[in-house]
Amino acid sequence: MESFMELGNAVLAQQSFSQMMGTKLTRLTLSEAVLELPLREDMKQQHGFAHGGVLSYMADNALTFAGGIAMKGAPVVTSEFKINYVRPAVGTRLIARARPVHVGRRQAVCQCDVFAVDSERETLVAVAQGTISAMGGREE
Amino acid sequence: MESFMELGNAVLAQQSFSQMMGTKLTRLTLSEAVLELPLREDMKQQHGFAHGGVLSYMADNALTFAGGIAMKGAPVVTSEFKINYVRPAVGTRLIARARPVHVGRRQAVCQCDVFAVDSERETLVAVAQGTISAMGGREE
Amino acid sequence: MESFMELGNAVLAQQSFSQMMGTKLTRLTLSEAVLELPLREDMKQQHGFAHGGVLSYMADNALTFAGGIAMKGAPVVTSEFKINYVRPAVGTRLIARARPVHVGRRQAVCQCDVFAVDSERETLVAVAQGTISAMGGREE
Amino acid sequence: MESFMELGNAVLAQQSFSQMMGTKLTRLTLSEAVLELPLREDMKQQHGFAHGGVLSYMADNALTFAGGIAMKGAPVVTSEFKINYVRPAVGTRLIARARPVHVGRRQAVCQCDVFAVDSERETLVAVAQGTISAMGGREE
Repeated sequence: MESFMELGNAVLAQQSFSQMMGTKLTRLTLSEAVLELPLREDMKQQHGFAHGGVLSYMADNALTFAGGIAMKGAPVVTSEFKINYVRPAVGTRLIARARPVHVGRRQAVCQCDVFAVDSERETLVAVAQGTISAMGGREE
Repeated sequence: MESFMELGNAVLAQQSFSQMMGTKLTRLTLSEAVLELPLREDMKQQHGFAHGGVLSYMADNALTFAGGIAMKGAPVVTSEFKINYVRPAVGTRLIARARPVHVGRRQAVCQCDVFAVDSERETLVAVAQGTISAMGGREE
Repeated sequence: MESFMELGNAVLAQQSFSQMMGTKLTRLTLSEAVLELPLREDMKQQHGFAHGGVLSYMADNALTFAGGIAMKGAPVVTSEFKINYVRPAVGTRLIARARPVHVGRRQAVCQCDVFAVDSERETLVAVAQGTISAMGGREE
Repeated sequence: MESFMELGNAVLAQQSFSQMMGTKLTRLTLSEAVLELPLREDMKQQHGFAHGGVLSYMADNALTFAGGIAMKGAPVVTSEFKINYVRPAVGTRLIARARPVHVGRRQAVCQCDVFAVDSERETLVAVAQGTISAMGGREE
């Protein structure tokens, strides 16, 4: 699986937003993509929790990695996704775990769980579901 | 409407993530919330477009402002939303325009259009729909 | 626009489920599809309102017509959609109005409002957003 | 678990739409709701597959049962859901399996897989995710 991780890390390195955020790819196989993010002080909303936009970014990105690798590393984009926030995200890190649910030639449907981690306890904070498309699958 | 803008700006000032991103609130009425974001070099994905996570953050945040003000400024959270990316986001700024579609006592359903702006031409890049809940409407 | 209506009615006539439900196509242009359904006693849920599944069927179908005609009548399927129910659906008819938000070569993103009608007053009961794909756009 | 099944069957019996469709509740526990539907000739779309509206009805209903029982049998409504269709639904029956992902006092977030069954082979045809609310959680 090393080549998947190499490919994934190369893509992540090209995402200036992920570099700025500090996102790490910790697992990438045909059945799972895992991204981790140290939660910084500048990632919060007005109630002191991680901003929903940070969680949706993590879900979007993990869904894309899961779908892209399932489609054999083809260049992909996220066409759409849906996210339900289920608990306030409090902790030192976020972990997003995504998996393909159905993989076709041009699209993969994936699901993702996002966890907040505090002193190693993981709490589910959001669940997401979306469509990853091979480029060209969405119009330019 | 000045008091809405004051309230909105006070909330935005408390969002450390929005401060770090550089988001501005440019309009906030009972029927519309508009957020703007100068697109920086550190907000991109691997194809050079604005990262989907940046767009989803803008949609999430605009939906929340539209729903919160429609519910008379009560403390709110975004319970869930869905976003469709329709074009690559290229330009110097993003504008997210959200409006309430239905307002209840404890929840508002809102829709949001996200535009990329380049030399003053606006291009629709994403559409979103979601639920904003008065705090306590989502479980703690 | 007559040819659009003819095409649409031909498709609707081939949907045995729509025939059984009693759905009528009342408008079909490049910018809007309108479906109507007389609400029967056998379309309710346990609280006496129209069943959510009836509303989601209407939304799904109207989205598909709007997207299909926007893609020039190509054979299409609904890839995905999201629906928010905003009020109980009470009345004698449902009306679903869908419109394309973005049209590409292989996909159209559409939005739909569903209304319940009672003695000619229309009440918004659901809003939906989804992706319509040219066949082949979803994997067989 | 018999009392859950009794409660569930009583609710299903009150849904005139489910009676007309022929839906059966085959399992209802705190962690899963399973609905089954014999696919009839009058449930198809123009390509000969089960209509997307039939699948979305099954998902909507299974999500509601899973969320309702997880919230201890309180009267509930589906506030919103999202569905991805992943394969044409061909077969003699549909099975919808839903499970709660997060359960709060007033809302439950649930996921659902919908399968088409032909000669006992199950094929995943759709995945859904949504919010079930205790009545009063959505405005009347």
